[in-house]
Amino acid sequence: MDVLLCGDIDAEEWRRWREALAAAMPEARWLSADDARRQPSAVLAAVVANPPPGSLQAWPRLALVQSLWAGVDRLLTDRSLPPDVPIARMVDPVMNRAMAETALWATLSLHRGFFDYARRQREGRWQQHEQRRADEVSVLVLGFGQMGRAVVATLAAQGYRVAAWRHTAGAAEAGTRVGHGAGVLQAELAQADIVINLLPLTDATRDLLDAKFFAAMRHGAALVNLARGGHLVDEDLLAALSSGRLRHAVLDVFRGEPLASGHAFWGHDGVTVLPHAAALTDVRSAAAVAVANLRALRDGLPLKHVVDRVRGY
Amino acid sequence: MDVLLCGDIDAEEWRRWREALAAAMPEARWLSADDARRQPSAVLAAVVANPPPGSLQAWPRLALVQSLWAGVDRLLTDRSLPPDVPIARMVDPVMNRAMAETALWATLSLHRGFFDYARRQREGRWQQHEQRRADEVSVLVLGFGQMGRAVVATLAAQGYRVAAWRHTAGAAEAGTRVGHGAGVLQAELAQADIVINLLPLTDATRDLLDAKFFAAMRHGAALVNLARGGHLVDEDLLAALSSGRLRHAVLDVFRGEPLASGHAFWGHDGVTVLPHAAALTDVRSAAAVAVANLRALRDGLPLKHVVDRVRGY
Repeated sequence: MDVLLCGDIDAEEWRRWREALAAAMPEARWLSADDARRQPSAVLAAVVANPPPGSLQAWPRLALVQSLWAGVDRLLTDRSLPPDVPIARMVDPVMNRAMAETALWATLSLHRGFFDYARRQREGRWQQHEQRRADEVSVLVLGFGQMGRAVVATLAAQGYRVAAWRHTAGAAEAGTRVGHGAGVLQAELAQADIVINLLPLTDATRDLLDAKFFAAMRHGAALVNLARGGHLVDEDLLAALSSGRLRHAVLDVFRGEPLASGHAFWGHDGVTVLPHAAALTDVRSAAAVAVANLRALRDGLPLKHVVDRVRGY
Repeated sequence: MDVLLCGDIDAEEWRRWREALAAAMPEARWLSADDARRQPSAVLAAVVANPPPGSLQAWPRLALVQSLWAGVDRLLTDRSLPPDVPIARMVDPVMNRAMAETALWATLSLHRGFFDYARRQREGRWQQHEQRRADEVSVLVLGFGQMGRAVVATLAAQGYRVAAWRHTAGAAEAGTRVGHGAGVLQAELAQADIVINLLPLTDATRDLLDAKFFAAMRHGAALVNLARGGHLVDEDLLAALSSGRLRHAVLDVFRGEPLASGHAFWGHDGVTVLPHAAALTDVRSAAAVAVANLRALRDGLPLKHVVDRVRGY
């Protein structure tokens, strides 16, 4: 099987991916676009990382586009994507675990006030503050896919009061309160001390974290955005921090990445900036997930994590 | 039952304790030393928070000293403590939980490099670093009492490779590697990425965290001291951080508290300073624990968490 490798990552990173993919599936050929063009009809699958628009249209027998990234919002903006070829997202248990760790770290930091203690250390101030129990802290997780579920389970195991919200209706889940729809969101926001965003970026969720959203939150609550910069209206967040409506924000993702050097978030005392590092892809583990789908394609078995292009994830 | 309240906390704090204790045991009388002195022989128990030396010797029928604090190292330095009166430590499940949260937060911060990201934010630098899985990170917990066990269980549940060490031998524990003795400590230190100190402060553990200890640690490992400042030789830690032997230290306790304003720890990039806040006492929960022991005394039942004065905890 010839597999096209295509995307906006550098040569050294492709070398690591190619090595891991080849180790997981030595019987395939892993080809750059230049190499694959010699025999386009041999290419049955593409493994991609935000490929340049247009790069997936010249392969007559292409039968699977496997993304190396969990978020496919940029990939789906390519109007020239062949309409009938299934596109699969990366769903990697190691990455879900890393995301749950970051969400737990942010929740512990906010709940126990460790960001405040860091500020006091910089000021040379020795001052304790009140300590609440985890079961007195309400966390709302937006998004209830693989990552949302991992985060909910991890926080619940630590004793937090956790609810989840998703944009569309879905099956009920034992042990977790999962709501959907705008009305439920308003009600949940009024109760949450910490809101963690893990939604996919779609036309329906873009700019969700705006002034109206913040106005529905509890006074002094905190926001953790681990999903996409396009969910957040930056100026509205800054206003909500200024007014005291929001106490703190932990942001891993931004409208422009790397975050521009002059951006107000960098030096803001109420904002923790992470460089899109909440859950880095584990090359070995993700390569195994991609290869499992390539083998399923070869063997005529069902593909996993195929994107619904209308829904957008 | 007349109960003496005695210690170095202020009037407002005593008011909160008295309220919680009275709510938990309305049939007792809760007396200051001044009030209790009118009828010394009615005092059967003392609830104390680092009482001034000498303050527990004038009560002829005193049968229990119940500490509100978990650490009794200062209390035991009082040479005038009546020799045959049992002294009980505070062992509060809410406090154990809080300690486990702080240990978990420190472990996640060190494992995932969140202290480094905070430094990079201050420098305006967007830069990811490598991400390891939790099961690739070894944590050594020093101390295997109530708090040590809570920390071990919490970290193991998050997938970390956890071992424990205690100063003296003890019963084996299912599922946890627990060592003791100096030789084992050297071997464990050579393997640990993160060392968390929860030992009691005794003559045997004082100054344990010194140059020799750091020399036995892995290059680039980290220290978390949540026990007592007297365990740590400050200058030796600073030297170990300068040489790169230690990557980072999270310190909640210090030789002098509050930490002196000129101390090198305050402004050190490799040191996170907390104001003895890793596990604050929960007044309501701790009052219930103290009252359970007072009732056991009254009813002639076995007392809990009685200190071995020779061992020192």
